[in-house]
Amino acid sequence: MTTLDEDLEDAAGVAGHGSGPVHPGLRRARAWLSRAVEPGTIDLWRYVDDHGPVEAVRRLRDGRAPTTVRSLIGARADQDATLADLQRAERCGARLLVPEDDEWPHLPLSALTRAVAAEPAERQHQSKRTQALVPPLALWLRGPGRLDELADRSVAVVGARAATAYGEHVAAELGHQLGERGWAVVSGGAFGIDGAAHRGALAAQAPTVAVLSCGVDRPYPAAHGALFDRIAATGLLLSEWPPGSAPLRHRFLVRNRLIAALTRGTVVVEAAARSGALATARRAQELDRPVLVVPGPVTSALSVGCHELLREAELGARLVTSAAHVLEEVGRIGDDLADPAPRHTTPRDGLSDLAARVLDACPVRTGVSPDRLAAVAGCDVLEVLRVLPALELADLVQWTGTGWRLAPQPGARPATGSGAAP
Amino acid sequence: MTTLDEDLEDAAGVAGHGSGPVHPGLRRARAWLSRAVEPGTIDLWRYVDDHGPVEAVRRLRDGRAPTTVRSLIGARADQDATLADLQRAERCGARLLVPEDDEWPHLPLSALTRAVAAEPAERQHQSKRTQALVPPLALWLRGPGRLDELADRSVAVVGARAATAYGEHVAAELGHQLGERGWAVVSGGAFGIDGAAHRGALAAQAPTVAVLSCGVDRPYPAAHGALFDRIAATGLLLSEWPPGSAPLRHRFLVRNRLIAALTRGTVVVEAAARSGALATARRAQELDRPVLVVPGPVTSALSVGCHELLREAELGARLVTSAAHVLEEVGRIGDDLADPAPRHTTPRDGLSDLAARVLDACPVRTGVSPDRLAAVAGCDVLEVLRVLPALELADLVQWTGTGWRLAPQPGARPATGSGAAP
Repeated sequence: MTTLDEDLEDAAGVAGHGSGPVHPGLRRARAWLSRAVEPGTIDLWRYVDDHGPVEAVRRLRDGRAPTTVRSLIGARADQDATLADLQRAERCGARLLVPEDDEWPHLPLSALTRAVAAEPAERQHQSKRTQALVPPLALWLRGPGRLDELADRSVAVVGARAATAYGEHVAAELGHQLGERGWAVVSGGAFGIDGAAHRGALAAQAPTVAVLSCGVDRPYPAAHGALFDRIAATGLLLSEWPPGSAPLRHRFLVRNRLIAALTRGTVVVEAAARSGALATARRAQELDRPVLVVPGPVTSALSVGCHELLREAELGARLVTSAAHVLEEVGRIGDDLADPAPRHTTPRDGLSDLAARVLDACPVRTGVSPDRLAAVAGCDVLEVLRVLPALELADLVQWTGTGWRLAPQPGARPATGSGAAP
Repeated sequence: MTTLDEDLEDAAGVAGHGSGPVHPGLRRARAWLSRAVEPGTIDLWRYVDDHGPVEAVRRLRDGRAPTTVRSLIGARADQDATLADLQRAERCGARLLVPEDDEWPHLPLSALTRAVAAEPAERQHQSKRTQALVPPLALWLRGPGRLDELADRSVAVVGARAATAYGEHVAAELGHQLGERGWAVVSGGAFGIDGAAHRGALAAQAPTVAVLSCGVDRPYPAAHGALFDRIAATGLLLSEWPPGSAPLRHRFLVRNRLIAALTRGTVVVEAAARSGALATARRAQELDRPVLVVPGPVTSALSVGCHELLREAELGARLVTSAAHVLEEVGRIGDDLADPAPRHTTPRDGLSDLAARVLDACPVRTGVSPDRLAAVAGCDVLEVLRVLPALELADLVQWTGTGWRLAPQPGARPATGSGAAP
């Protein structure tokens, strides 16, 4: 068993950003950083960015790093729990994802890289750590989901923990409909709206992502243990903090920026005034991601925050009442369909070759699975999942509850009375 | 008893727009027009505007008017029910208000005058009558309210007839709070939201205005007879159609433009998709009046129209949840208070002299009436009613349920524990 310093020395000789597998020493350096550095610390992220993770850790440990930087981790510099953390992760089926991995969600997180570049050099003028938009140094993942792919088609659904039955109903419906359409629901795993959104997605047998502010091996709240196990069975539990970490209060705020950054937009379902969900919405807005808000009865205290978001003109939040509205804002129809067809042409006319093939693969009556569609259309199942939402939005296909089929078209069936041509 | 034609001949020699009382012949000409012309007819409004009402009626009756204009009233040109209409109005306590009266709400209705001026000359290119924004030729009023003053501080509250308990609750609360703050609620007198808004205003002992699409002597719906009597006792029943007129279907649409035009803004409380309330909201937007929308549960079909209004970015509708939000949009705080005070100065600093005097007149404990405030402040009660909403919005005064008093200020009372200076 090699020591951390031996591993680092070994890794120092290897190019960090090659295309091959990540050097174990580099991963170990990131593991060390994930325990030593509280996420959101601007100057430490910059130090790692400047020197690379291996060299940064060596300098932090042997005293060559500037005192101003080293002081940000204090006594943690002398400790090393990397092997224990990596082994503990392995025991619960988790792994450490680092920016040098292919799976790292570079594109969504690049908004954080841009944001941290805009922070001033002088610490006293920088954003507070709980509000700073800083990329993560590493991510602990538990579950079979591939983070870059899930993030690419994901929506955050957040809201109050003390949600009402109305809010939980709407969150579960949204989660279910988004899941059905091949989108991953990302939330915080908390009671109330978070849990309902995850459960809705799971009910649609869709992968969902819980972004935690504690270790992925001891998710919080404990009463959601069974829910977290279900999420980890098909989707992902995700955390910046190493296994065993406690969900400290300030960590929730730091965590919220990740929920906003990983997703294409944030939906707030229920939020009281001054709710944590509002903080996530503001992060999304700072990252130029759509902020989508579900209204509620004006008589409900749990919708006050939502209505305030919608009343803030500068925020540009959009009112949504359904998954279709959400996908209108975050869906990239243009990728899979050509420009929206003018009304007098058929929606088919504008389809890409791939979309047309998937459409032709859909049966008229009995719905079939995306796998079956992929087999018939002659493409990958991920490609099928990618074009289905657009086809559904164009009213060309529909979900039967068990599979996908063609949507009935006006005039496309033998007319029963209106005399339309087939 | 003089005939119509004798009256008109007599009136023809008198200046129509003098400052004295309106000539009976002129009023009789307007009465004749109100029965002969369906409101919203662009070319007839223009003909009356060009020739004056007396000369226009004479020409329409003796055949000198162009056939294209005369054809718009057809057989009604030969009829005359003016005396019967005026007597019937008098019997139910109603009167005919004409643009030549001091009470005519010129300012709010000037938006209609501008809109009709923008209509093209060729009839086939003009807006449809049910959508055209044309000023009324005359208004039948029943009740003690003075229309110009009520309209000057009025808000339209409209919505679905088949409202839910939630919608009726919110409409009644809004009506009550607006009434308490000295604002007149204008609505259509229908079942559901309209009725609830009127009732809320009445419960605050505030005048309210029902704009009808039938005669003020036979209001529709009949089941609202008692409600209409209560409205007529303190506020106004108002109609463009002469006594005895039936509430024909197309008249509702024509009527809606008046609700939008008479008020400073339109609040939509509940509206299904394609609801009549949405038409009123669109009229308000065309007239550059704020469109304010109360959201509701996304699970309610009766809120679908409201949410659609809020999702239409071009409409610029604003989400509101309370009377305070409504008054932020329609209240003219600037008239009574200076620019909003910066946070570190006290709200008092920016007060106009009048507002400061009214504020100083407010007692600390027991609320007093606006009359009492006017007496102490040395001003008119209307001036008091004018500054109170702004003072209330600035959290300087509060309504106790029976009167106005100073609102408790942070640190303004002997500190009981936080040690704030008095």
